[in-house]
Amino acid sequence: MKKYNWGILAPGKMSAKFARGLKLLDKAVLYSVGSRDSGRAEKFASEYGFLQAYGSYEELAADDKTDIVYIASPHSLHHQHTLMCLRNGKNVICEKAFALNTRQVQEMIAEARKQNLFLMEALWPHFQPFYRKAHEILKSGMLGEILHLHGWFSFQPPFDPTDRKFNLQLGGGSLLDIGIYPVIDALTFIGVPYEIHTFALFSPSGSEESITVSFRYNSGKMADLYSSFKTNEGIGCKLLCEKGNMIVSRGRDMNQRVILEVHGRPVEEFVFSPEAMGYHWEAEEVMRCLDNNLTESPVVPLSFSLDLIRTLDRIREKAGIVFPGE
Amino acid sequence: MKKYNWGILAPGKMSAKFARGLKLLDKAVLYSVGSRDSGRAEKFASEYGFLQAYGSYEELAADDKTDIVYIASPHSLHHQHTLMCLRNGKNVICEKAFALNTRQVQEMIAEARKQNLFLMEALWPHFQPFYRKAHEILKSGMLGEILHLHGWFSFQPPFDPTDRKFNLQLGGGSLLDIGIYPVIDALTFIGVPYEIHTFALFSPSGSEESITVSFRYNSGKMADLYSSFKTNEGIGCKLLCEKGNMIVSRGRDMNQRVILEVHGRPVEEFVFSPEAMGYHWEAEEVMRCLDNNLTESPVVPLSFSLDLIRTLDRIREKAGIVFPGE
Repeated sequence: MKKYNWGILAPGKMSAKFARGLKLLDKAVLYSVGSRDSGRAEKFASEYGFLQAYGSYEELAADDKTDIVYIASPHSLHHQHTLMCLRNGKNVICEKAFALNTRQVQEMIAEARKQNLFLMEALWPHFQPFYRKAHEILKSGMLGEILHLHGWFSFQPPFDPTDRKFNLQLGGGSLLDIGIYPVIDALTFIGVPYEIHTFALFSPSGSEESITVSFRYNSGKMADLYSSFKTNEGIGCKLLCEKGNMIVSRGRDMNQRVILEVHGRPVEEFVFSPEAMGYHWEAEEVMRCLDNNLTESPVVPLSFSLDLIRTLDRIREKAGIVFPGE
Repeated sequence: MKKYNWGILAPGKMSAKFARGLKLLDKAVLYSVGSRDSGRAEKFASEYGFLQAYGSYEELAADDKTDIVYIASPHSLHHQHTLMCLRNGKNVICEKAFALNTRQVQEMIAEARKQNLFLMEALWPHFQPFYRKAHEILKSGMLGEILHLHGWFSFQPPFDPTDRKFNLQLGGGSLLDIGIYPVIDALTFIGVPYEIHTFALFSPSGSEESITVSFRYNSGKMADLYSSFKTNEGIGCKLLCEKGNMIVSRGRDMNQRVILEVHGRPVEEFVFSPEAMGYHWEAEEVMRCLDNNLTESPVVPLSFSLDLIRTLDRIREKAGIVFPGE
């Protein structure tokens, strides 16, 4: 069995979840951690059992033994860090939002193709049992066609202008951080909308902190999406279909739920509680693709990431969300 | 105790609900029924115990003994029927939508003032215990400020181009028939929006059959509303507030629910199942106002009805919903 050396760029909350996932995989060697702060890298490495700790991202990227890098820095640095890792011959899985805008994502994809390396956006839902269950139900035809999608994600972090959620320099705002989930749901279950309306509200630091988005499709389907750092509604989407409705949601504890309401039948609920919150499946997919000489994942192809960032750009343009230097 | 003779203009499903409400009130005499079809008027009168049955609306309006007329004809006839009743000296409670557009409502109000007669739109929610409970909770401050409202009403009647729900000549469309409820919720709990976005989908007969509406308020609050004859999501609204959320909904069985989720506290549910679906309280309000020489209700003042129809007009204009002859 071929094993892969994993590197973690930017240890933090997301990287801790991801490392707990890696630990479940025999094929994954928890190899290196890179942080701007060497103390932080060492602490994370010892806590999760990584072999190397680097006090800079550059050293991490330069280590020839690293096969795959997981990037979890702030959104505004994904582009730069992905390019750096690819140019150092690393395969990359990078957290969503993949980058700040379409131009950056296009450059990342072009670099991966040029280097013939693997690149994937870490789109958690696509590897989870609740998403597979939802697809299975939709494919069965028991709900008929989807006509409308409501999607939401809101929670209430304390306002802190230096925090990446509120700092425009770091790509702050609810849309790229949490609103991206209902957007992913709409793209996954319905597709790319032809028309978008949106309203955004802004925090004292100028970052968007609440947004509503309406999608209209050529097929006549519609979606309305909401994200906010000011309210607390949890995470999920509700699909209104010809023959019934389906709620696809994940709790903040990462329990996954599919609630199926076929008209005229009792409500059914499916609950999934995968190990390590299901983060290991993303990592497994990267290694499965590398084993098969694939430079992108058929589950989350780069075309999906392009559709996603283009849609986010369209929303941002209508909502007046601009990042410094754009 | 002063008693009032009630007349019912247009017997049908709504009038049956209203008549069952009237029967609970000692002050109400179930006096007359008027229909274009005398057989239908007689059947309804005998079923609910009305004393007179008329084979035309004109005869109903001309009967000097009638004190108050309840109007339940299609939306497109509310204006004409209200004016006729007022001009015949009748006090009027008319089903929502009060009329097709602002001009019609303004004429109805002007006529009521000219005749010094009572006029009210039959806005069911405002007289119900679940609405009072919601107001009580909001006033207590336990939820803090409302930041966002999701509102919805959808069910799936079979498509029938002659039915008032799908016939533009009769004011057909989901907005005036059921979408009006989430609009009422938004106006009641937040107020009149300064900006509106909307998407509408149309049936084969040209009537709007699904619509999404976004409201934006000067205060930074937002609302997104949805109604449809193509899906079945039930009726309700969810208020996302600073300190928690509240769902205010009524089932198709007319059971009323308030679900209170104060952050950090167990969820509380309040269920109300009023007699006669609570329709008697609207009728009671009319008689209470007449006892007190009031020509409009302080609970549902005509200014609220004007705000409502103006908002519906703004939505219709943006959505491209036009009724014949407008």
